[in-house]
Amino acid sequence: MATKGPIVEQIVRHPGGFPVVGIIGGGQLARMCQPPAVGLSLTLAVLAQAPDAAAALVVPASPVGPYDDVDTVREFARQCDVVTFDHEHVPPEVLAALEADGVPLHPRPSALRFAQDKLAMRERLGDLVDCPRWRRVDSLEELTELGTEVGFPVVLKTPRGGYDGKGVRVVDSPDAVPDCADWFERAAGDGLLAEEAVDFTREIAVLVARSPSGQAAAWPVVETVQTGGICTEVIAPAPDLDDTLASRVTEAALRIAGELDVTGVMAVELFQVDRDGEPGYVVNELAMRPHNSGHWTIDGSVTSQFEQHLRAVLDLPLGDTRARAPWTVMGNVLGGAEPRHAELYGTYRHLLARDPGLKMHLYGKEVRPGRKIGHVTVCGDDLAELRDRAAHAAGYLEGTIIE
Amino acid sequence: MATKGPIVEQIVRHPGGFPVVGIIGGGQLARMCQPPAVGLSLTLAVLAQAPDAAAALVVPASPVGPYDDVDTVREFARQCDVVTFDHEHVPPEVLAALEADGVPLHPRPSALRFAQDKLAMRERLGDLVDCPRWRRVDSLEELTELGTEVGFPVVLKTPRGGYDGKGVRVVDSPDAVPDCADWFERAAGDGLLAEEAVDFTREIAVLVARSPSGQAAAWPVVETVQTGGICTEVIAPAPDLDDTLASRVTEAALRIAGELDVTGVMAVELFQVDRDGEPGYVVNELAMRPHNSGHWTIDGSVTSQFEQHLRAVLDLPLGDTRARAPWTVMGNVLGGAEPRHAELYGTYRHLLARDPGLKMHLYGKEVRPGRKIGHVTVCGDDLAELRDRAAHAAGYLEGTIIE
Repeated sequence: MATKGPIVEQIVRHPGGFPVVGIIGGGQLARMCQPPAVGLSLTLAVLAQAPDAAAALVVPASPVGPYDDVDTVREFARQCDVVTFDHEHVPPEVLAALEADGVPLHPRPSALRFAQDKLAMRERLGDLVDCPRWRRVDSLEELTELGTEVGFPVVLKTPRGGYDGKGVRVVDSPDAVPDCADWFERAAGDGLLAEEAVDFTREIAVLVARSPSGQAAAWPVVETVQTGGICTEVIAPAPDLDDTLASRVTEAALRIAGELDVTGVMAVELFQVDRDGEPGYVVNELAMRPHNSGHWTIDGSVTSQFEQHLRAVLDLPLGDTRARAPWTVMGNVLGGAEPRHAELYGTYRHLLARDPGLKMHLYGKEVRPGRKIGHVTVCGDDLAELRDRAAHAAGYLEGTIIE
Repeated sequence: MATKGPIVEQIVRHPGGFPVVGIIGGGQLARMCQPPAVGLSLTLAVLAQAPDAAAALVVPASPVGPYDDVDTVREFARQCDVVTFDHEHVPPEVLAALEADGVPLHPRPSALRFAQDKLAMRERLGDLVDCPRWRRVDSLEELTELGTEVGFPVVLKTPRGGYDGKGVRVVDSPDAVPDCADWFERAAGDGLLAEEAVDFTREIAVLVARSPSGQAAAWPVVETVQTGGICTEVIAPAPDLDDTLASRVTEAALRIAGELDVTGVMAVELFQVDRDGEPGYVVNELAMRPHNSGHWTIDGSVTSQFEQHLRAVLDLPLGDTRARAPWTVMGNVLGGAEPRHAELYGTYRHLLARDPGLKMHLYGKEVRPGRKIGHVTVCGDDLAELRDRAAHAAGYLEGTIIE
């Protein structure tokens, strides 16, 4: 956030007593709140990073300003009935100022800190749900100690600001420990999170929503497929998922939401593990906002995560979370590396001709290699066919598949 | 259109070669194009009647200006790659000016006139599809003649500008003919449309889309239930519809679209009639735009009429029109008469609690008695239950049902 500008936007409300929902951050998550807001007659206001931010392209009230400046955010919040987040990077001092002003914030800062700080999260969740073995490490020596205790490889994480594989490093052996010196230097005494590298059978995720009154709802558990630390595919529901495990992870997510007093949508990313032949789970990450693992719900569920998030932060009754088809497959679209990939319109025109049932969701972002620029969804009865279609569409938009 | 203002809007395009779709008129039809535009990465621009018009509340580029002023509309169109319509009231001289400028207009004026002028429509459709017996009448005498020929009651219509039962009068008997003198006076030599009052078993509608390249797609035929000349309920698909009749009316709509070179979405409203025990049809009205009878497609079809209209006017490949559930029921929400009905937010909060599967679509319009302010949709397996739920929700929002 280099610039700091005044907020000049005038918000035109929907008549009939409908509120204004403020979203700090104008990325794709804020953008995807606009379609359900239209139906619900809610006015969105987005504090955007730029006039052409993903959400600013589709939300009339999108003032531009830095999310880490107390005065800017306070002025923005004064125009809103409730404030929520596109990302988890709003600094604690900004959140504190809003709370002091009496702004209804969802999730509340007291809950949000567990999604902002992985050390706080591990500390808090340890008693509630199954987690990997972990410790806070402040030195190379402590990292070696954990590795010796739980066995190498171990995973080293920066507690704050990581996403899509950033802020995560796998330390394969004691010999690789010294290579982590730069991270300890940068941590400057704040500590790092080190944890066992879980031997998992697959990655799954569960998405729940919870309202300030305590109403909660969970969507079906999904399988997430990661490539190079980035989620590339989500299958809903997770194929061949053991019923007991499905109940246990759903119950775990609802317990976390309740115990941490989470409001809005929360995603829990988990590893499915084998416990002597019985399926088990280990909680990997938390996100307190709509999440990539829930994008399938736009087309695949009666109530999408974006509609549900709006309902939840407004303490409106939550919607039906059931799936609308036996299977839904979501494929993430990453930016391709060649200049021709920037001309997405031509590419998607061909794709729409090939697959009339494909649901396209592009975020209005400039193409950069590896950047998440959209996703595609297909729903139906035949999982193998759906996976092929989603993979083709994503690959075609990325330029890795050319026919 | 009292005021005439300059267009100062700067349209921020989606990067990647994506076009700007201009919509003349900022009502609910333009508004409901915004959700699919978000996914397709299309930028909408709306020439709105007011800053708080239904579409202006949700589309960033919504300059305010009169749709019947040539200079305003030309300036608006210069910023757009294609121009389409929220309503059918744009005057021929404005359309002609846009055509002369080389603006891609969809539907084209040569097709649109058949939706703007019911006399032109009857004249053109007579050879293509089954229509009621009709004639142009310029005097009370000619109206009496038609009544004598086809039998009273007859239906008298103003060729232009009618909707929701407005511009339609039923003339029960020869004695009632003189009461129509005011309409002939107002017609001022332009003539009125008189036609037989069709003895129908029910009203049905078929929605099609057609692109400039000639690709066409039809949704399942629906039943429309009218109350006081206003559509109050749509059932998709039409229950117990004879397969042959379904094929015939779909084929009729596709023939109209093809012969008239319609581009975009077109709705054909029909009467189902009994022909000596065999089901038949008579075409009642045409609309060349997304239509109330197609609102069910937002939640009930793979591709909504609004997404399809955007695809069609851009000559993008059309999407899958199949239904997503065995039954979808749409209920229109009309404004209630009492002041408390203006506070819709409180009313809908209760409704969301009662029915978590209800899909709410409110238009951001001030409540006025009888005004269409939204619709609700439910999808599922049990038609009787769905009709009850839709009727309850619509009635509750209108204030005619209070629990």
